[in-house]
Amino acid sequence: MKDAIPLNEAQRMVLHHAVQLGTERIDLLQALGRILSNDIRSNRDHPPCDISAMDGYAVRAADLSVVPAQLIVIADIKAGDLPTLKVEAGRCARIMTGAPIPQGTDTVIRVEDTQAIAPDKVQINVIAKAGKDIRSRAENLRTNEVILTAGTEINPGTLGILAMVKCAEVQVRCRPSIAILSSGDELEGLHDAFDVNKIPDANSYALMAQVQALGIVPTLLGIARDDLNDLREKLEQGLQYDVLLVSGGTSVGVHDFVRPTLEQLGAQMHFWRVQMRPGQPVAFGTTKHCKVFCLPGNPVSSMVCFEQLVTPALRNMMGHARIFRRILPVRLTQAVAHRPGNVEFVRVVLSRDDGGYLATPTGSQSSGVLLSMARADALLVVPSACDGLEAGVKAIVQLLDGTEFEEENRGIE
Amino acid sequence: MKDAIPLNEAQRMVLHHAVQLGTERIDLLQALGRILSNDIRSNRDHPPCDISAMDGYAVRAADLSVVPAQLIVIADIKAGDLPTLKVEAGRCARIMTGAPIPQGTDTVIRVEDTQAIAPDKVQINVIAKAGKDIRSRAENLRTNEVILTAGTEINPGTLGILAMVKCAEVQVRCRPSIAILSSGDELEGLHDAFDVNKIPDANSYALMAQVQALGIVPTLLGIARDDLNDLREKLEQGLQYDVLLVSGGTSVGVHDFVRPTLEQLGAQMHFWRVQMRPGQPVAFGTTKHCKVFCLPGNPVSSMVCFEQLVTPALRNMMGHARIFRRILPVRLTQAVAHRPGNVEFVRVVLSRDDGGYLATPTGSQSSGVLLSMARADALLVVPSACDGLEAGVKAIVQLLDGTEFEEENRGIE
Repeated sequence: MKDAIPLNEAQRMVLHHAVQLGTERIDLLQALGRILSNDIRSNRDHPPCDISAMDGYAVRAADLSVVPAQLIVIADIKAGDLPTLKVEAGRCARIMTGAPIPQGTDTVIRVEDTQAIAPDKVQINVIAKAGKDIRSRAENLRTNEVILTAGTEINPGTLGILAMVKCAEVQVRCRPSIAILSSGDELEGLHDAFDVNKIPDANSYALMAQVQALGIVPTLLGIARDDLNDLREKLEQGLQYDVLLVSGGTSVGVHDFVRPTLEQLGAQMHFWRVQMRPGQPVAFGTTKHCKVFCLPGNPVSSMVCFEQLVTPALRNMMGHARIFRRILPVRLTQAVAHRPGNVEFVRVVLSRDDGGYLATPTGSQSSGVLLSMARADALLVVPSACDGLEAGVKAIVQLLDGTEFEEENRGIE
Repeated sequence: MKDAIPLNEAQRMVLHHAVQLGTERIDLLQALGRILSNDIRSNRDHPPCDISAMDGYAVRAADLSVVPAQLIVIADIKAGDLPTLKVEAGRCARIMTGAPIPQGTDTVIRVEDTQAIAPDKVQINVIAKAGKDIRSRAENLRTNEVILTAGTEINPGTLGILAMVKCAEVQVRCRPSIAILSSGDELEGLHDAFDVNKIPDANSYALMAQVQALGIVPTLLGIARDDLNDLREKLEQGLQYDVLLVSGGTSVGVHDFVRPTLEQLGAQMHFWRVQMRPGQPVAFGTTKHCKVFCLPGNPVSSMVCFEQLVTPALRNMMGHARIFRRILPVRLTQAVAHRPGNVEFVRVVLSRDDGGYLATPTGSQSSGVLLSMARADALLVVPSACDGLEAGVKAIVQLLDGTEFEEENRGIE
């Protein structure tokens, strides 16, 4: 168990244990980003009848064999009306977008293609084939038809559909409860007095933000000191959650109490080292109820390990089919050195190129330099077997949080 | 004002008015995704002194001219210690990751490259040059140096840095208050009794979700009926917010009360039609305090207009530099017909290709088919002057919400 295992094997082990959680019923207003746990059927036909797609006139196409044609306007139909009239030859009805098509008509002529002659007379200037600008009954949704399947992520469009079939509440996959614990005598908490010799605890907060970005509000358990009782108590508390993230405590030194204490508390540790950089010392274990990740004390290593191992686990638990970061093909602006052995994640910024994206490393890749993570748009993936990437070659990057938007407005012309 | 204006001109007009809001002080725990309104300076050197990057032994490189070399271990230094000893030739200190480098030493040898001979004696198996595996004082942050500038988006890495310099509260750009109003007699509210002849109000909820995806919780004002007093009262209420979204009410028919009522209430309307599809009838106006958008009643048109006009406006108000959707280069799997005139947004799903992404239209592009929006990964941008795109050509798409992740784990090997 001391040997480092390949990252994709570590991911498989994590996903084997981090299985999807149960379900809960929540208000539609809180449902964005959640996963449906049941199929959803339509409770209605939509549209409920043939309706107009435009503001204009409902006509009989046969009346327009010669244009311009003048028609008598016998009604004025708006959305929400229930017209009972029948439109005979030579007649038509003024009609609004979304309004029911009256009996006898088969076509809508948009208002722009007409000319009002008198209050009850209109001139139609164009011919049209039957069915034009009419939305058919049940074209969008048919009563009782399954319209969304279990496992669907609720995006804004999906949420609109759920409102359309009147699901004011929805049954969705639960989100895991998550605790975050830092460890180490050298750490200074966010609200502790300033001590020039201490290291401020950044990891708890960066991890918190990574968890928040997945839509979960974690509990911060604070800092466990290098004291067996304190550590044991805080770990015991953390193991009550679905997921426990322990920042620091992955070193192999004599001061590392985390591992034996976790084992005493009943955790079975599945791996302790992974062939990745940054982040080699990263551990994963399970109790009956809890998934525990021990993340490196270096802030960048901690964040990269979270991205590669914790994010897919959490998204899997929440029922997402899409659990891995979207990757982008890029071209490198400079060479990236690499010795075979570990998969390496290089922090890069993206820029624009004729055909797509260029990636440039953010500078120092030291795992202590959190600024480089803050500035990065993406992580360049350097495969374990690679012996370096030359400038100009194609490569792939994983997009990071906060990169869904860009400054330039491209392509809108 | 009745003529349709080009989309990029409409965007420029909207951004001219939707300027960035004021600032507020918030807790760091709530700061993810917000924009810093002030420069942030470091309150400390980080690391506070030279520290070890590894678990191992702090040694004098000069002692390792011949290896293996045996050294006397005179101390045991862990993170948080403040060693006062000086290490002389032939001696070394056991040291933990993050612990201060003791005087006299200049190199760290990782524990894997050593062998314990006795409790106070270690054999070093490798040579090393001075400075190896040592992190220099202030390598990450230097006291008083500006480390984050005003305008920076708070991503997880940034949030970690803010914790590192003990910003338990941060000054950030405000988020706009937003009201959403639907209009039309034909609409049935989410909690109204089922009526087979009515159209369920999906737009309010899809718009709500689009707003939520930007980190803002909007207020739903419900449905204004085709009654002047009701409409006037609800619009007046909506104009109290920073932004008012009116769903429906963009038609040019006689039943459209929205425009005159807005003008009576003091709104200056800047445009009423935009050269885009779906979404042509979309309006934008301003009062002294409020930005008001009238969005089409068709759910897809409404969502696409929100993406192109409201999203950049809201992100601009919140102080983001990145206000437009990230675009991806793709290759089309099938031809897309287009007549020059409007910029068109075609809902597509993405799939994978050797070099990058393929885009395939979701099927019916009727603006009533909200399911196609729910299923879409992205919007294919067809420029206004284009007279159709052939299968196989390169094109660009805008990524939609919920597409930051994908099913396959690509590149991790």
